Amino acid sequence: MKLKRYEWIANALLEEIEGGMYRPGERLPGVRRLAEHYQVSVSTVVEALKLVEDQGRVESAERSGHYVTALNDTKRIHEPVDLDRVMLKPSPVTQSEWVMNLVRAALTPEVVQLGAAVPDKSYLAVKGINRALKDVCKGNSEHSDHYDFAPGYKPLRRVIAQRMQDLDCTVRSSGVVITSGCQNALVLALKSVTKPGDIVAIESPTFYGLLHVIESLGLQALEIPTDSKIGISLPALTLAYEQWDVRACVVIPNYGNPLGHCMEDEAKRELVELSKRHSVQLIEDDIYGDLGLSNRRALPLLAFDPSVIYCSSFSKTLSPGLRVGWVVSSEHQERIEYFQYVNSLSAPTLAQRGIYEFLCSHSYDRYLREVRSKYRQQLSKVRALIQASFPSGTRVSSPAGGFVLWVACPKGLDSKGLDSMRLYEAALSQGISIAPGTMFSTTKKYLSCFRINIAQPWDAQFQWAVVTLGGLVAQQLEGK
Amino acid sequence: MKLKRYEWIANALLEEIEGGMYRPGERLPGVRRLAEHYQVSVSTVVEALKLVEDQGRVESAERSGHYVTALNDTKRIHEPVDLDRVMLKPSPVTQSEWVMNLVRAALTPEVVQLGAAVPDKSYLAVKGINRALKDVCKGNSEHSDHYDFAPGYKPLRRVIAQRMQDLDCTVRSSGVVITSGCQNALVLALKSVTKPGDIVAIESPTFYGLLHVIESLGLQALEIPTDSKIGISLPALTLAYEQWDVRACVVIPNYGNPLGHCMEDEAKRELVELSKRHSVQLIEDDIYGDLGLSNRRALPLLAFDPSVIYCSSFSKTLSPGLRVGWVVSSEHQERIEYFQYVNSLSAPTLAQRGIYEFLCSHSYDRYLREVRSKYRQQLSKVRALIQASFPSGTRVSSPAGGFVLWVACPKGLDSKGLDSMRLYEAALSQGISIAPGTMFSTTKKYLSCFRINIAQPWDAQFQWAVVTLGGLVAQQLEGK
Repeated sequence: MKLKRYEWIANALLEEIEGGMYRPGERLPGVRRLAEHYQVSVSTVVEALKLVEDQGRVESAERSGHYVTALNDTKRIHEPVDLDRVMLKPSPVTQSEWVMNLVRAALTPEVVQLGAAVPDKSYLAVKGINRALKDVCKGNSEHSDHYDFAPGYKPLRRVIAQRMQDLDCTVRSSGVVITSGCQNALVLALKSVTKPGDIVAIESPTFYGLLHVIESLGLQALEIPTDSKIGISLPALTLAYEQWDVRACVVIPNYGNPLGHCMEDEAKRELVELSKRHSVQLIEDDIYGDLGLSNRRALPLLAFDPSVIYCSSFSKTLSPGLRVGWVVSSEHQERIEYFQYVNSLSAPTLAQRGIYEFLCSHSYDRYLREVRSKYRQQLSKVRALIQASFPSGTRVSSPAGGFVLWVACPKGLDSKGLDSMRLYEAALSQGISIAPGTMFSTTKKYLSCFRINIAQPWDAQFQWAVVTLGGLVAQQLEGK
Repeated sequence: MKLKRYEWIANALLEEIEGGMYRPGERLPGVRRLAEHYQVSVSTVVEALKLVEDQGRVESAERSGHYVTALNDTKRIHEPVDLDRVMLKPSPVTQSEWVMNLVRAALTPEVVQLGAAVPDKSYLAVKGINRALKDVCKGNSEHSDHYDFAPGYKPLRRVIAQRMQDLDCTVRSSGVVITSGCQNALVLALKSVTKPGDIVAIESPTFYGLLHVIESLGLQALEIPTDSKIGISLPALTLAYEQWDVRACVVIPNYGNPLGHCMEDEAKRELVELSKRHSVQLIEDDIYGDLGLSNRRALPLLAFDPSVIYCSSFSKTLSPGLRVGWVVSSEHQERIEYFQYVNSLSAPTLAQRGIYEFLCSHSYDRYLREVRSKYRQQLSKVRALIQASFPSGTRVSSPAGGFVLWVACPKGLDSKGLDSMRLYEAALSQGISIAPGTMFSTTKKYLSCFRINIAQPWDAQFQWAVVTLGGLVAQQLEGK
């Protein structure tokens, strides 16, 4: 099952192409540079390039190198939407409480954490943020002797606004409301624009945290088919808007969780126009926005329409334990601030100051460059390992950013699909956590899928965990 | 207007008697010890004692000193409840958003902060907690590279449970859920046991944060008359329970905000039995519990009934900016944890670890002893200053703990009462913030009252602020 060296490199190249490192029509670096980059011989690179060419992903032009061919859809995870067959119906969310137990049970330190989307510390800017926090503690005691009442610590809000301006968003620092993380930002955003019973359109599959927010606010979820390449289906969303009185629509346009897709600018523009036309409040979760595999930072929806409510946080980059996120809404800021104040008076002050110091030190962009390259390498290695160690027919997402993979298992011998809840239990008993597909929908649609967090050290334990998972999938499909 | 030295001391003695330092029937220290304590001559103490005796608060016994007489009700702030005249009717809360603006406007650093109940840093354990936070930053990076998923950091939960066991509460560490402060604990508690439209009985006056929570959850407030000496009126509460379908009752049994009362153990016992009989969920806010003026720590309601939901935090003692509180509920823990998880996944990790380290160092009890004595002195001085500088007929609470005073102004020349909203604005234009009485009720009942935060340095600026307030009250009552 072990991949040959040239196969590894072929996979790495495929990943980079799919991840957007090289765009269709673009020329790949020359064989000598690739050989240097991957630390292999030129002949290995040549063999790898042949393999990539065989898959139709690059074309070689006499004497001028290899060019990326246009993307095709052969690697879709889920079938494209057939609008005649799609049934759109809102439903209350009821999975809730057992899911939390499941998340928590899987978070014991002995377990290999492929479940929750929490990066291992080697992928976080832990050192830098710790230094900043230490500096804040050393300074005056302002951080602990008072509240940073909602909307939060002014200098931090200013730096966040500046960063968002660089992403073509018209945001002033007074428009940034600091929250207790991105989940909290989503709670505040949805609470501010809905009342119990309202219908909220969401991507399907979508991350379970959002389903819990919808449940806890007594809203109904309307799941819109979402493609692992292009994101939420705009034709299906149009249908939903026409058929139902949709109040809000929550999307992760950049590196969606769990699919890892990134919407094209054109699709983003269409989405905001469509939602505007139907008076649906768009809410975007951009928590993965800084973690694209390509070096070009994808634009938020907010850049296309100032009425979008924007949510994000530093939990996927600096540290999840800080609990500092933010929300921007030109139209609903007052209510959002009020609910933030009622809920907890203020966000933690020390963390806000630590993040501010860190962002001012300019280490954040350096960190992002480094971590993007780490994720590129890790994703490519993990995908290759899955392809090598899972039953044939297994489809795995090819994310454009973020650090989760969505795995869709083939049908088994008895023509039944995998039951990812059973897989979850079998894996946990071996000391491995995963996030079963049922967590990502109010339906059983994704029973045969699961999500894994790849932000783990590439060590023997991690590789063992992935290979073991593959074995457990095979066992179940063979009816054992 | 300036008080003579013996008058100051008489006031100080009265405060200590009313604050519970000396109980009815107890003997005061001898004149020589009092003289030493207050750094005055024996004859000044003798004069002061005469004054206190004149007010009927101590009795002198030939050759054996002075004894505290029984408490009388002459210093009641609000009239005792006349059950035949009391109208109990639940009402939705709608004050909300303007109050937040008011709170925030008053929190600019140039303003003398008599409004919000946030202690000046000289009353907080800032140094100790900063040292602890610094130590945590210096140690391993565990605090920032992961979440402390709800219910929170285990060691901290253990230390909190131990402290609560010392207060006769049967709490295991697994029963403590860490929250983002006490306000957040109240949100989680109420959300877990109510649905929109439910009636919640509360003390009247009560702190505005609770009114906001009730509003944001769509509940109705049923205000129960509350006495500045004995707390919530149990006869009125009985009536309320009989007349209305009350779902929950929220009280601050120890050093209620704004009145500063402390319920007697007997009344606490009666309250829990009454609520049990009517199947009303009791929720207690014990945030001021550690700040009693007497050295005996008042017991929580939870000590009398394990089904009470207990809420507290470290915001009034260690630091408001930490945003770490907790909630204990034997019956509703699962829902509370779930809502805490949905709302923000976890409380901030660094702060949880810092507090844990600090509590382990045993500095907390030493700090509490010191700060209680500081508050005793400050309360006595501020009350005396108010009595000296406010129009006669002004009544001021005599809290048994905490650090706020409730001031009820007399009627003016035109027989109209004070409008504390106008006072608020006049004071703010002079650079002084107060909390006007209307913030403490859904009605206009407390229009002529206001609350001031006395946890401020006893300096020229603070004294100027109190005296200026007195002048502004006088001006308004004189119709200027």
